[in-house]
Amino acid sequence: MKKMSKNGTINNMYDSLGDENMDSTVVKSDLDIALESEMKKIDEIATTLQLEDDEIEYYGKYKAKLSLSILDRLHTKPDGKLILVTSINPTPAGEGKSTVTVGLAQAFHQIGKKAIVALREPSLGPTMGVKGGATGGGYSQVVPMDDINLHFTGDIHAITTANNALAALLDNHIQQGNELQIDPRKITWKRVVDLNDRALRKIVIGLGGPTQGVPREDGFDITVASEIMAVLCLASSLDDLKVRLKRIVVAYTIHNEPVTVGDLGVEGALTLLLRDAIKPNLVQTLEHTPAIIHGGPFANIAHGCNSVIATKMAAKLGDYVITEAGFGADLGGEKFLNIKTRAANLSPNAVVIVATIRALKMHGGVNKAELKSENVQALTDGICNLEKHIDTINQFNVPVVVAINKFLTDTENEVNFIKEWCKERGVEVVLTEVWEKGGLGGIELAETISRLVEEPAKPFEYIYDLEDSIEDKIIKIAQKVYGAKDVQFSAKAIKQMNDFENYGWSNLPICMAKTQYSLSDQPKLLGRPEGFTIEIRELKASIGAGFIVALTGNVLTMPGLPKEPVALNMDVDSKGNAIGLF
Amino acid sequence: MKKMSKNGTINNMYDSLGDENMDSTVVKSDLDIALESEMKKIDEIATTLQLEDDEIEYYGKYKAKLSLSILDRLHTKPDGKLILVTSINPTPAGEGKSTVTVGLAQAFHQIGKKAIVALREPSLGPTMGVKGGATGGGYSQVVPMDDINLHFTGDIHAITTANNALAALLDNHIQQGNELQIDPRKITWKRVVDLNDRALRKIVIGLGGPTQGVPREDGFDITVASEIMAVLCLASSLDDLKVRLKRIVVAYTIHNEPVTVGDLGVEGALTLLLRDAIKPNLVQTLEHTPAIIHGGPFANIAHGCNSVIATKMAAKLGDYVITEAGFGADLGGEKFLNIKTRAANLSPNAVVIVATIRALKMHGGVNKAELKSENVQALTDGICNLEKHIDTINQFNVPVVVAINKFLTDTENEVNFIKEWCKERGVEVVLTEVWEKGGLGGIELAETISRLVEEPAKPFEYIYDLEDSIEDKIIKIAQKVYGAKDVQFSAKAIKQMNDFENYGWSNLPICMAKTQYSLSDQPKLLGRPEGFTIEIRELKASIGAGFIVALTGNVLTMPGLPKEPVALNMDVDSKGNAIGLF
Repeated sequence: MKKMSKNGTINNMYDSLGDENMDSTVVKSDLDIALESEMKKIDEIATTLQLEDDEIEYYGKYKAKLSLSILDRLHTKPDGKLILVTSINPTPAGEGKSTVTVGLAQAFHQIGKKAIVALREPSLGPTMGVKGGATGGGYSQVVPMDDINLHFTGDIHAITTANNALAALLDNHIQQGNELQIDPRKITWKRVVDLNDRALRKIVIGLGGPTQGVPREDGFDITVASEIMAVLCLASSLDDLKVRLKRIVVAYTIHNEPVTVGDLGVEGALTLLLRDAIKPNLVQTLEHTPAIIHGGPFANIAHGCNSVIATKMAAKLGDYVITEAGFGADLGGEKFLNIKTRAANLSPNAVVIVATIRALKMHGGVNKAELKSENVQALTDGICNLEKHIDTINQFNVPVVVAINKFLTDTENEVNFIKEWCKERGVEVVLTEVWEKGGLGGIELAETISRLVEEPAKPFEYIYDLEDSIEDKIIKIAQKVYGAKDVQFSAKAIKQMNDFENYGWSNLPICMAKTQYSLSDQPKLLGRPEGFTIEIRELKASIGAGFIVALTGNVLTMPGLPKEPVALNMDVDSKGNAIGLF
Repeated sequence: MKKMSKNGTINNMYDSLGDENMDSTVVKSDLDIALESEMKKIDEIATTLQLEDDEIEYYGKYKAKLSLSILDRLHTKPDGKLILVTSINPTPAGEGKSTVTVGLAQAFHQIGKKAIVALREPSLGPTMGVKGGATGGGYSQVVPMDDINLHFTGDIHAITTANNALAALLDNHIQQGNELQIDPRKITWKRVVDLNDRALRKIVIGLGGPTQGVPREDGFDITVASEIMAVLCLASSLDDLKVRLKRIVVAYTIHNEPVTVGDLGVEGALTLLLRDAIKPNLVQTLEHTPAIIHGGPFANIAHGCNSVIATKMAAKLGDYVITEAGFGADLGGEKFLNIKTRAANLSPNAVVIVATIRALKMHGGVNKAELKSENVQALTDGICNLEKHIDTINQFNVPVVVAINKFLTDTENEVNFIKEWCKERGVEVVLTEVWEKGGLGGIELAETISRLVEEPAKPFEYIYDLEDSIEDKIIKIAQKVYGAKDVQFSAKAIKQMNDFENYGWSNLPICMAKTQYSLSDQPKLLGRPEGFTIEIRELKASIGAGFIVALTGNVLTMPGLPKEPVALNMDVDSKGNAIGLF
């Protein structure tokens, strides 16, 4: 059911849903399962969280926005335990990280624990392109999945609007006399749409004469790659949002000085446009576990985690917060642990690494068509990918559990191999069947985590210090997280490191932009490559978000559509029921 | 408080709010008044309309979406009386048409009649540019005005998304082999943003090599100029929406055959993206009169009226429906009467023409700075503009009332002159003070209309027949509505009329695209120009909406921002309260 496009790097932006399970005996699509489920009215879910009337705003019957005042009311309440779900490097075989995240929250719920799942909002571009949805799968989904995958509560539209309003105001500043002396060749702020639209990657705007703007090169990113998305996800309050928006760098002057949103004087308007988008969204899982879905920055160009506000709120409202980060532990996971934890002033009590036997076999060199056959040798060859991610999380001093997301094609020998491999290394490992069985398929995982988080915690350790130079921070990530031998910086990147230091930006965390498919910067190097060099092509200053992006290889920030986009199958019946999302 | 930009033609897209009254003694802004008002929870408003639980979806506490099933439930209930509010040709002096529309609904409410006001949704571009809001003014506003003027319930964002998804799918079709043989030079579908962004008017996309699309000329319109907005506003059901979307013409092949959304196979996906946007939105006026705000097509390039579904639903739910059409009676008014009435199968029981003494003096040759002084001679010279619009409405056989929206600077002599002028011609005229007094300022107007709509109605007459040729339809509008001597068609327009006839499109109504400032196609010809020729530059086929657009002069479909956009004053406080909208 899942299609890979030629531009796989980008189209598989969110994580796979585990719907490859459908290959075998199950015939219902995720959408069928979701539409057949009986949702509770969202006010019933709110009641279980003991929310006050003024703290909730309904968006239809099954969605609501949560007021930021909840954080004030519960200020002194201790935080619930935070569990981060990440994965091995994703493969076309599918890992099902979101499915496990949702299923785990349902499992906690099943064993009587007050759990909340905190997820990212799906981007519409990939949904209409190759994915069809990003809300878990099977019997571990958040619902209403169709709404969540379409416009949801409008957060991403608000970000698109704020992003493009800023672009229009910037170009208008130049058109109306350019008092700030912005160099039109040095504008770094791009426009966005929340669609896969490759024809907008590189464009020329402002054509048609003096009343039509100033001609210049430009391009569109997908909305989830907008710095405003990252800013919204790292802000701790509406005031902090404004402060962050104000310091976003949008261009440089003819004297090479940074130009900020504050210089343009439009941080107020942008914050106003985002005043509802900053409020987390409450929905539910198929088993009525509360789900907070909020924010969804790209996991390559940005940090790939849901919002700080949502995570903090979930930690105040629940005893266990299950959240995920984009792509594998080397990308979203690392950024969660080095960037989001710093912005949110919280760290996870446990990390789950999701893997599938299928995917590990691909890391061991098997191609997708041959995954159904037992192949313990391939598993032996590919498990090094999992091994590296376990090593990485251990460096942060956080307890790790490996969750094997079971597929119907997995054989007993394969399962035993993994269990044995983990046992030998003292690694916790649990088999989960949450796609097929919902929360009941994840009870052992929930119980294992419950036990781990009660053990005495070691002090959380970062991979790098903020005071390290930009260069050192990048090298530490490359060596400690990717297992690289070395890092090579382009001439451009070296110049930028100097410039950024002069601008006073060197004490920010690093947001690596790298392919998700490999620990290296080369998508085809699966398993656990060694001796490789990471090439840093250029840097990007996300001063509003508060990080420096380091770009390796070709990281696309605007996906393309495949030959047969999912959109061709999407439809709606006379009563408004969605068709063709999966 | 209202600013006119250099591109006045386009920035005053929606109608003025009457806030020039603020010049004198009143110091509160519209936003202040709106924020100070005590709104009722929207479920209380829904209760007054006897809506059933399943028919309403809350969007926060003060906004709701109404289910289309209401139309089925009330299918056999007789329609309420429909009152169309239109105006003279707008001037920088301000007429306050939306203010009178809202005030009139409040006045009906005050005299115990069950009235509903049905308005268009404001576009964000002008709100951030020169307007600051489009929800009435003073004590005749719809609230929450800040929400309505910002993202509201996301309808316009859904239209932006559907419009741009179609563009992306179209360009992707070409990229992936161009099976339909689309000529990239003959693509008529443009992308949109709901912002004033002149730098996007004329662009080149698809640059950067073979993986980045096919290079071609393109451009962005403002969202409210999208044919999808017009389609949404003319559709009678979700199924009809899909039918209309399917027939939208987006391009022509290398053999000059039209290419439709249906040919691309994406009408299902587009309809799915619009399944919530098609539901009307319920809010309230400052006096708790129910207000249905839904759809907002451009009044020059499109037909400029709120949605057919909203108007029909209001007619089922209320005994009096007060609605408005964009710009003056020659533009939005004419299109309401020739286009919307046909699509909706309803016609108004009365038409209100709003005028101000200030505006009529401008039509008489006075410039804006001198409007405060009494000038009966200018009024005598300018009243011909009002006279023409009265004549026009009379041709449709609908009762007319002139509403003089009173300003503090109006003198007794000026008021008496107008009253006398109307009396001599047997024209109903009423002075309204709804900006300052709310519904109480419009009671005489409401009572006059109550009386008129009970009188025996003459049969409604269209200005042209659908079977007339495209040429004849345009000539009839120009002569009967504008008072033109003649119509001149460009060579391009003549060729298009032939082509369109060959494509089978000649029996559609005409949507004139003309400046709103003059009865002619020359913005500076105020008053009641005579002997002029209307020049038809080109035609545009809006086959989904179901009309042929005839473009006169330079009609911009993407506004620009002024030197000091309203956005510079927009802000939000720590608690989320809007600042700087007015």
